[in-house]
Amino acid sequence: MTPTFDMALIQRGARLRRSPYFDATLRAGCRAYTVYNHMFLPTRYDDLHAEYERLRTGVTVWDVSVERQVEITGPDAFEFTNLLTPRDLSKCAVGQGKYVLITADDGGIVNDPVLLRLGENHFWLALADSDVLLWAKGVALNSGLDVRLCEPDVSPMQVQGPKSKEVVRRLFGDGVAGLRYYFFAETDLDGIPVVVTRTGWSGEVGYEIYLRDGSRGVELWDRVMDAGADLGIAPTGPSDIRRIEAGILNYGIDMTLDTNPYEVGLGWQVDHGQEGDFIGREALARIAAEGPGRRLAGVEIAGGADGEAIGFVTSAVWSPRLQRNIGYAMVPTAFAESGTRLRVATPDGEREVVVVRKPFVDPDKEIPKS
Amino acid sequence: MTPTFDMALIQRGARLRRSPYFDATLRAGCRAYTVYNHMFLPTRYDDLHAEYERLRTGVTVWDVSVERQVEITGPDAFEFTNLLTPRDLSKCAVGQGKYVLITADDGGIVNDPVLLRLGENHFWLALADSDVLLWAKGVALNSGLDVRLCEPDVSPMQVQGPKSKEVVRRLFGDGVAGLRYYFFAETDLDGIPVVVTRTGWSGEVGYEIYLRDGSRGVELWDRVMDAGADLGIAPTGPSDIRRIEAGILNYGIDMTLDTNPYEVGLGWQVDHGQEGDFIGREALARIAAEGPGRRLAGVEIAGGADGEAIGFVTSAVWSPRLQRNIGYAMVPTAFAESGTRLRVATPDGEREVVVVRKPFVDPDKEIPKS
Repeated sequence: MTPTFDMALIQRGARLRRSPYFDATLRAGCRAYTVYNHMFLPTRYDDLHAEYERLRTGVTVWDVSVERQVEITGPDAFEFTNLLTPRDLSKCAVGQGKYVLITADDGGIVNDPVLLRLGENHFWLALADSDVLLWAKGVALNSGLDVRLCEPDVSPMQVQGPKSKEVVRRLFGDGVAGLRYYFFAETDLDGIPVVVTRTGWSGEVGYEIYLRDGSRGVELWDRVMDAGADLGIAPTGPSDIRRIEAGILNYGIDMTLDTNPYEVGLGWQVDHGQEGDFIGREALARIAAEGPGRRLAGVEIAGGADGEAIGFVTSAVWSPRLQRNIGYAMVPTAFAESGTRLRVATPDGEREVVVVRKPFVDPDKEIPKS
Repeated sequence: MTPTFDMALIQRGARLRRSPYFDATLRAGCRAYTVYNHMFLPTRYDDLHAEYERLRTGVTVWDVSVERQVEITGPDAFEFTNLLTPRDLSKCAVGQGKYVLITADDGGIVNDPVLLRLGENHFWLALADSDVLLWAKGVALNSGLDVRLCEPDVSPMQVQGPKSKEVVRRLFGDGVAGLRYYFFAETDLDGIPVVVTRTGWSGEVGYEIYLRDGSRGVELWDRVMDAGADLGIAPTGPSDIRRIEAGILNYGIDMTLDTNPYEVGLGWQVDHGQEGDFIGREALARIAAEGPGRRLAGVEIAGGADGEAIGFVTSAVWSPRLQRNIGYAMVPTAFAESGTRLRVATPDGEREVVVVRKPFVDPDKEIPKS
């Protein structure tokens, strides 16, 4: 289930972009990078379980500059952005963010960004790993809408964990620290221009600081580290363990262009009743009416067993808190009920799997449903 | 110029796809992978100069499954595909390929694939590193054209070098080995379905074998290796040295969405006189008339020097054959003439640069202008 070959050498060519924090991540001893949106993403500085504990109990900093933005401006920016996503953006105020899906004509998921509404006709989409700028430019071509699309100089870092609130309070004051979930503030740190959002990919309390001047990455990094030094702040990679426990999905594996919102439990994102049009409307209405033929289920994976495989596992991880292997599996809807027993093939033989409710921990704790 | 930090660890997550040849590349001792089109690309098995010599004098095998295909079919596939590229595809016969650019509305380069015309209304685009499937799906939305777009199960490998002809002859016979440049044949190897093209990214004689059944990658790999064993066939990564010497550009660095064909010396790709329409027509006509304000020049980079930097270097490499540092630099058109002396900043101080003609070697040898 877990990869048996964990590391490979990657050549650092100029084709792959470096984040404004890159030198700071090297200096901090980053031990592994992956590639995401044509850019290096730091994934590990320490033992993964140690990083997970730090996230759960303290405060961690992740360089997520790879969440590249698509910026949408121009007189028709609202109508165009609303066209890109099944969510009804008339319910998104200026200064507010939303977790949204970008859907294709057949309802397939193109991306699942955090959307920020910076003005009536000014939006950012903080992207998962696919070229949404190309998608949006293609859509714009014959849309008859007047929009400008670009990738601005914006590079987020995440500050996550129960002590992140104190770090953000020290840096930006009570107002920013007290932001409601998915709201944001445009501000600066002694002249370093940033947007601070109450968002994250951890299931813990957290913030993202969107740096608006790529030349000042290391400076911002150092300020954040200094502000949390006595709280034990440390850089980590995004925590796969914590996000799976929290029921959060990873674009490119748990959901792809070949899956639709209803299959992956994100049907609540589709506002069928809205006035505005959106791409995939017809297909998604049909899928909603018929019900999806398969679903992404939460699963617990037992030790040795043998039998017949069904569906496929998309993510799996050992949860130190639950002391269990947990993950997601795409299975026929008939097998997606809690308690269903299945088996999966793994490189080490077959294992028994039980379908369970997501999220795996803290079902009442906030998860990214905003 | 050359990266000072050459390697980093990359975590192999399930999000990044593996090629059908992946197990064979591991077995063959691949020492470095990069990521390209959300997939692992083997870049190195041996010393880069040893790999270069093997390519120049023998025969090498590269796993380039990362050249994912966009397949375009349906009654309007010809018109749609012609819309995507400034080349006049009415001059591309069934059974023929073309090196094409995909351009955006402003003339920016979306990708530079090899296009294969498999039928009147059946095309593949073998992609460089950007999500052209999303671009094409976006363009198709309001185009009024009836096309089907997908990523088929097709995974190319390159067989390159002067002895590649003999390997292909042994595997597929004289007809396939004798294919003209950029033509192809649909065939099979004892039931393994493939398309063999007379193409490559090396400046040497070469072929690509497009595997059409991802379950048979290792089998195909072994057959190719066996056929060339006595010729010293060996797996390598794509050779940056050889491609720069040959004047070949690398998408994502030498050209991007922010550069246009005229800036990078690919203006010959734009068929202004054609009947069909194409995206970027107006912008490219304007740029052609005005002339680009900057150009990608070939440069030779000297040893130590100091002075003022101008433009930026996109690629640079030590050429063992020329015993010189060579590369490309984007510079104002006024500085793009051969013989112009410039200086560039490098991590090790400033160096003198001379603008020279591309390609750097064998100017009369075939380069990918088909």
